Amino acid sequence: MDLQMDKRWNRRAVPVGEAQRRLLSCVEPLPAETVPLWEGGGRYLAMQAEATADWPPFARAGMDGYAVRAEDVRAASPDSPVRLRVIGSVAAGESAAAALAPGTAVRIMTGAAVPDGADAVVMLEQTAPAGASGEPAVLIKQPADPGRNIAPRGEEFRRGDAIAGPGERLAPGHIAQLGAFGYAELRVHRRPKAAVLATGAELLPVGAALEPGRVRDSNSAMLAALIAGCGAEPVLLGRAPDDPAAVDRAVAAALREADVVVTTGGVSVGDRDVMAALLHRPPAGGAFAKARILFERTAMRPGSPTSAALVDGKPVIMLSGNPGACFVGFELLARPLLLRMAGSRKPLPRVVQAVLAAPVNKPSPHDRYVRARLYAEGGVLYGEPLAFAKSSMMASLPGTDALLRIPSGSAGAPKGALVDALLPAECPGR
Amino acid sequence: MDLQMDKRWNRRAVPVGEAQRRLLSCVEPLPAETVPLWEGGGRYLAMQAEATADWPPFARAGMDGYAVRAEDVRAASPDSPVRLRVIGSVAAGESAAAALAPGTAVRIMTGAAVPDGADAVVMLEQTAPAGASGEPAVLIKQPADPGRNIAPRGEEFRRGDAIAGPGERLAPGHIAQLGAFGYAELRVHRRPKAAVLATGAELLPVGAALEPGRVRDSNSAMLAALIAGCGAEPVLLGRAPDDPAAVDRAVAAALREADVVVTTGGVSVGDRDVMAALLHRPPAGGAFAKARILFERTAMRPGSPTSAALVDGKPVIMLSGNPGACFVGFELLARPLLLRMAGSRKPLPRVVQAVLAAPVNKPSPHDRYVRARLYAEGGVLYGEPLAFAKSSMMASLPGTDALLRIPSGSAGAPKGALVDALLPAECPGR
Repeated sequence: MDLQMDKRWNRRAVPVGEAQRRLLSCVEPLPAETVPLWEGGGRYLAMQAEATADWPPFARAGMDGYAVRAEDVRAASPDSPVRLRVIGSVAAGESAAAALAPGTAVRIMTGAAVPDGADAVVMLEQTAPAGASGEPAVLIKQPADPGRNIAPRGEEFRRGDAIAGPGERLAPGHIAQLGAFGYAELRVHRRPKAAVLATGAELLPVGAALEPGRVRDSNSAMLAALIAGCGAEPVLLGRAPDDPAAVDRAVAAALREADVVVTTGGVSVGDRDVMAALLHRPPAGGAFAKARILFERTAMRPGSPTSAALVDGKPVIMLSGNPGACFVGFELLARPLLLRMAGSRKPLPRVVQAVLAAPVNKPSPHDRYVRARLYAEGGVLYGEPLAFAKSSMMASLPGTDALLRIPSGSAGAPKGALVDALLPAECPGR
Repeated sequence: MDLQMDKRWNRRAVPVGEAQRRLLSCVEPLPAETVPLWEGGGRYLAMQAEATADWPPFARAGMDGYAVRAEDVRAASPDSPVRLRVIGSVAAGESAAAALAPGTAVRIMTGAAVPDGADAVVMLEQTAPAGASGEPAVLIKQPADPGRNIAPRGEEFRRGDAIAGPGERLAPGHIAQLGAFGYAELRVHRRPKAAVLATGAELLPVGAALEPGRVRDSNSAMLAALIAGCGAEPVLLGRAPDDPAAVDRAVAAALREADVVVTTGGVSVGDRDVMAALLHRPPAGGAFAKARILFERTAMRPGSPTSAALVDGKPVIMLSGNPGACFVGFELLARPLLLRMAGSRKPLPRVVQAVLAAPVNKPSPHDRYVRARLYAEGGVLYGEPLAFAKSSMMASLPGTDALLRIPSGSAGAPKGALVDALLPAECPGR
């Protein structure tokens, strides 16, 4: 029994923003690799891409119908249609037809190049065959303003316009634009490989039967799902014994392959908290003996013991073993780090303001990050704090859309208060 | 030149909701497969999962400190601490210590089982060593209400409580719960395989140099990214010639491997629209000759020619070749279909109400689905229509968060109006 008081309770709590800055300042986006365009969705661009042509590249028909000179059909009406001689036809993919002289028209299909001389397309439904005379002709039954049903060359993009740049997450719409401009392959940042290590003598493998006083390691699989949800690759290391030297070796071995190690458990002030011991009494000659501590306590509830260090030059994030605190620590600190390594230029949580749908009455010495459901009703965005909000609890995790930030203080926040709601920076699903 | 009017313009426009019902009613979730728990994030469960034990499974210490009998420490204060004899110690993972008799305490670590007889845990910081007497003892400097710092057995879940059921998308929080209850493997629905076929004689491969009147096939790669974003597997078939028999063969071949075919282009009323021709004049003996048309026009802008059929018993969704209309058709029709096949029980777009940040002045005979950015300001959710909104346009696609539904009519909708904003049903990123 160790009743000795040590420095562990004096670990200085670093504000969340400062902890994020320290983490992000010690990593760079991972090196670039080449992928085919169609695999680029959700990846982060490692190049500057620009319009390689005007877009559309030619004046393009937006409708099936007839290319005409607007002034020829100014007086057209259903009762008094204008008769135009049809001098040709152009389908999508064909070179433009011959130029239009006054009194002529060209049959044109959607997407085809509008011939010189034409300045409007009359839709097929507003025309009629001109009868069985020898020469092809059409009756135009409606007038058309100049420009009607034509997308002029360069309407959307001018050659040289920026399409997407370094650190931009590629949405399906970017993929469409890059395809239109001929980018068959893309340079994107490599996906981070994140190793996950659980500590705690109480942990059983997920497949084991429960034993008195023990629980299963559910955090490793949860972290794997969170990591995969960031577009990164999880590598599960399993459960480490509560032995600093063994954990030191396991982390060092993982860092030879992985870009980052995420641990869960053992980071609090208990006598047997192995991660805390590694930071403060590292085994001689091990990887942690030369570690740089980035922070060893974070000014937040839950998850205040969350710590981080640079070990062998790579980040090790130490999350709580309590499921709720582990989740919150991941969202606020591990996700931004992984997104930055994946190449993102906007890795921090997105903050929106929401109306608190129920009071949060607990006072807190640190900002509190409350798991919440977000919903909009009548144009108002609400954040509803979920039950089972304690650090140790997991019942509220599946329904969590956002974390509501309740400022530190003695009061909490009343129903109706406007609070910050934190959402993941970028959701790889879109 | 074919000036003959045919039935193509009389294709009946089916409301979007009805088109969705017809599509969803002809598919089932795909068969189940087994995956390890840690790979289950974002998948759709094909089983009922329940709590296999009370949770927590034993009364659990939430803090490091001393397990005590609350009535023993009722009068404790810093000036007049209560001295308790320490009869043992229990760490996380150990069986509970011996039961507490009056006047005794047990040193306890976070996560450890609280011994019988104890009904509160006093945090270590509120205690002090009791000095150097022979027998171990502790001074308790604060009272503790019964239950303090203890998570009672069954507080979060009772054995038999439902955790997640068929069709539920597994968030990281579900994975945590399933791990805690011993589900090392999960039955989830197989991911859909979606083949993508582009039609249109104007299409060049993405890697080709532009030619007069031609454009690159950018929709195939965009659809691949959209499909991957649904958690499905895209298979690119490339570009088909404008030849109904060749397209018929390509679709039939793809359906032998894929669960669904998504086409883009050739679905309008033009003379050479190959998908429309396949539906109405299918080559004898081909797969489309026995197709069941689900709908051949959808009451929406953009994307009204969007069609669908059952071919060889599997769905074929025919999207517009215009990038904007292709995107909208995917979101409203293809995404729900893919999510249903992936197992989702909530595959339709999520609808929230947002305040229109700028007017939409265009009248429309059908509901209009306007690409928009969503943002919250002061607790109000705004939808901002994006520029470059035409069917043919792709400039607005990367910034699209949601589709605003502007009801059909002569007026559009004014700034400040409350409109429906449609978001993807479930975002695999969380």
